[in-house]
Amino acid sequence: MRTYLRTIVEDNTTRIGKIFDYSIQFLILLSLVTFSLETLPGISKSTFDLLRGVETFCVIVFSVEYILRIYVAEKPFKYIFSFYGLIDLIAILPFYLPGSVGLSYLRMFRVFRVFRALKLIRYNRALNRFHIAARIVREEIVLFFIVTSILMFLTAAGIYFFENEAQPDQFASIFHSLWWAVVTLTTVGYGDVYPITMGGKMFTFFVLVIGVGIVTVPAGLVATALSKAREIQRVELKAAGIEIDEEY
Amino acid sequence: MRTYLRTIVEDNTTRIGKIFDYSIQFLILLSLVTFSLETLPGISKSTFDLLRGVETFCVIVFSVEYILRIYVAEKPFKYIFSFYGLIDLIAILPFYLPGSVGLSYLRMFRVFRVFRALKLIRYNRALNRFHIAARIVREEIVLFFIVTSILMFLTAAGIYFFENEAQPDQFASIFHSLWWAVVTLTTVGYGDVYPITMGGKMFTFFVLVIGVGIVTVPAGLVATALSKAREIQRVELKAAGIEIDEEY
Amino acid sequence: MRTYLRTIVEDNTTRIGKIFDYSIQFLILLSLVTFSLETLPGISKSTFDLLRGVETFCVIVFSVEYILRIYVAEKPFKYIFSFYGLIDLIAILPFYLPGSVGLSYLRMFRVFRVFRALKLIRYNRALNRFHIAARIVREEIVLFFIVTSILMFLTAAGIYFFENEAQPDQFASIFHSLWWAVVTLTTVGYGDVYPITMGGKMFTFFVLVIGVGIVTVPAGLVATALSKAREIQRVELKAAGIEIDEEY
Amino acid sequence: MRTYLRTIVEDNTTRIGKIFDYSIQFLILLSLVTFSLETLPGISKSTFDLLRGVETFCVIVFSVEYILRIYVAEKPFKYIFSFYGLIDLIAILPFYLPGSVGLSYLRMFRVFRVFRALKLIRYNRALNRFHIAARIVREEIVLFFIVTSILMFLTAAGIYFFENEAQPDQFASIFHSLWWAVVTLTTVGYGDVYPITMGGKMFTFFVLVIGVGIVTVPAGLVATALSKAREIQRVELKAAGIEIDEEY
Repeated sequence: MRTYLRTIVEDNTTRIGKIFDYSIQFLILLSLVTFSLETLPGISKSTFDLLRGVETFCVIVFSVEYILRIYVAEKPFKYIFSFYGLIDLIAILPFYLPGSVGLSYLRMFRVFRVFRALKLIRYNRALNRFHIAARIVREEIVLFFIVTSILMFLTAAGIYFFENEAQPDQFASIFHSLWWAVVTLTTVGYGDVYPITMGGKMFTFFVLVIGVGIVTVPAGLVATALSKAREIQRVELKAAGIEIDEEY
Repeated sequence: MRTYLRTIVEDNTTRIGKIFDYSIQFLILLSLVTFSLETLPGISKSTFDLLRGVETFCVIVFSVEYILRIYVAEKPFKYIFSFYGLIDLIAILPFYLPGSVGLSYLRMFRVFRVFRALKLIRYNRALNRFHIAARIVREEIVLFFIVTSILMFLTAAGIYFFENEAQPDQFASIFHSLWWAVVTLTTVGYGDVYPITMGGKMFTFFVLVIGVGIVTVPAGLVATALSKAREIQRVELKAAGIEIDEEY
Repeated sequence: MRTYLRTIVEDNTTRIGKIFDYSIQFLILLSLVTFSLETLPGISKSTFDLLRGVETFCVIVFSVEYILRIYVAEKPFKYIFSFYGLIDLIAILPFYLPGSVGLSYLRMFRVFRVFRALKLIRYNRALNRFHIAARIVREEIVLFFIVTSILMFLTAAGIYFFENEAQPDQFASIFHSLWWAVVTLTTVGYGDVYPITMGGKMFTFFVLVIGVGIVTVPAGLVATALSKAREIQRVELKAAGIEIDEEY
Repeated sequence: MRTYLRTIVEDNTTRIGKIFDYSIQFLILLSLVTFSLETLPGISKSTFDLLRGVETFCVIVFSVEYILRIYVAEKPFKYIFSFYGLIDLIAILPFYLPGSVGLSYLRMFRVFRVFRALKLIRYNRALNRFHIAARIVREEIVLFFIVTSILMFLTAAGIYFFENEAQPDQFASIFHSLWWAVVTLTTVGYGDVYPITMGGKMFTFFVLVIGVGIVTVPAGLVATALSKAREIQRVELKAAGIEIDEEY
């Protein structure tokens, strides 16, 4: 019995395992849509009740799934404290606890459960490439994170020096200026705060010319690392004697 | 007769075939300009009539071309249901149907017909590289699409949590917040909606630092894949004994 | 005499040639600063006269230099109709012609003369890499230019369909919508025009998710091509028996 | 004695050296937080006194550290005039000088001291890769800097020509227009200044299509250079017989 259930819950190569997985994935998406629809202002009482009904149904299925997964797991505690185990728990817990609004928001982390769908579309190799790429660029990303942090701090402190007097509300402190710094260096530029003094504009000029390039380098690093990861994986697969598509 | 027409319509290596292709390309651009000019407010009746005249002329030529292409095609149905066959039909259909405004807009898809011009400038190899690159990064793009979707949803749900109370109109629901999320994560930042609470700004700070990088990775992936595709193509062409420019 | 002058004007390896080149470069920058300062509102009569004096001095030197370059050139007409010959002429011409305001603006193209400075810092190899890279990505850039053009047109036509009724002033025609399309797809997002209807926002959502990636690919292509160009150049230099810095 | 102190101050492989380094790093971060908190408007007298106390404590420790570093250095003057020596001095100097506000801001450069933390997390190899990458792309970055400068100037001069008459305040001179140029070409787009004339918008259209790509290339260059630097380093380490992680 337990072995049979394991085939359904954990194995997605069998027909019934696939149906189970696709159904769960569908319910995850359905419950996310429900979660989003509930926030719409001015929805009628009947619609709200319908959404709650769908929500309740989803949570019951997820709860059964959660218990099943613990039941069929070879090492139940390993599953419970794994990433997916915790996500699965967070996905259902808010429903059972006397819910404050904040707690109820935890439901949104259900979205992480869709990652399991990757098993269905057999993207193990692509995921593996992401792990290889992450290992390759780990150090560079940390370095850029430190450089970006320093750049943000200096930018915020600098603009505070130039603009605080002219715009005491927008650039009230270095913490307020950090908001401007992140919106500027990521090139979002909402336009809610911007320098108006000559000094502030010249400072921003130099910050933009130098800083914008620095902030966008990590994305390029990840892209080249993924390209490199493909080659590494190819060599590893060949070494392991696994057949690979030549056009790959 | 049919063979001769085929030379004109489908072959662009002959002189007459080239003239035919260039004329059609010119008419496509002309009809797109006409389509755009018609939307200008306050154009006079006489200008409008002139534009309609040009439009009618273009559509008649396109119709004749469409019938010709069906006539000369070895497998007419294959052409009719091909990408270009459908585009060719959509390009003329709105003219013949009693046109609602929405239907008439389909004319804008004529723009896809300009892709045929690539045959004229002999970009077969470059197009082929795009196909190779697409095959290389297919899985990574799908993965990034899933990650980006999850990121967008979490960003929208998060900002809704922080800003809904302070700005009930701009962040009325998760769907409204999604608008803010896409405008922010793609760094467009119109400035029509932005967080004003301390919590919302701090949340945006972290979303920007992490999220902006993720959203821009796919462009880098495509760039490196196209570079890789060039090498693959070079090897394939050499293997096929096709002469390639050494400086290439 | 002519040979000696040629050493000064065209050769920058000799001491006097270097002094000549650095002096001209300095005057180019000076005349650009003068050109910019003249546009400042509310500058006094005396300052303006000073700026004009500097300007006159620069133009006289540039004129003498232009005549010298024609005099020393082995093929004077080749120089006159070369890129630099035309730029050199445009740099001085507005001064001698009875100047309309528009004509006087041509002075700003003097800025192109600073490219000559690259000879001074010996960046021939780096420039050569740019030529190799340009040849590598030429086809891809043209393809992306066509795709971007089509994307811009479809985006403009689409948003016009959704927003024209709601915002007849901002989205008055497809040409007006093109302004929005370019500001959005390049992620500038001034915030002077943005969709306000539900349909327009959903349309923008999909355009941003797909389009932003496409528009930023060419920059990545150029970056990878320059990296490739370095390798090609290395091989070429080695083949030519030219010594290269091993750490290079 | 001096040798023992050197072990503490300069060596971070010993237990006591590590404790010393981590303590200093913690104090640097603490003093930066203090510096930022002091700028908050409306903090109470008692909080301000507390922050000043923390500040005074940090500066005393930094001063002792500075004297120690001079004392233990084999070549004291070399340390004093090194990058870190100057930063260490700037970090404490404003405290001892009768401080004008401007001088007191120098404290923010303390942030550069956190770079020393990289020794702690043993990122020597990653830092070395950055040096290699910098040497690789030095020439290209200089070229792009020149091209970007020229592009900015031409963009500013061009928009001034088109918009000065319509918006004499926003585009008052070429220097004012430079602000718009940098905000536009880096795609920040605050929305405080943007073209409103037909000519200015068409000019911006072409500037954006061509210019945005150019400005983002350097980031891609750095990314590919870092990838190349990894390979170069790998070869160098192998040649030096240093064992490297195969998965590296």
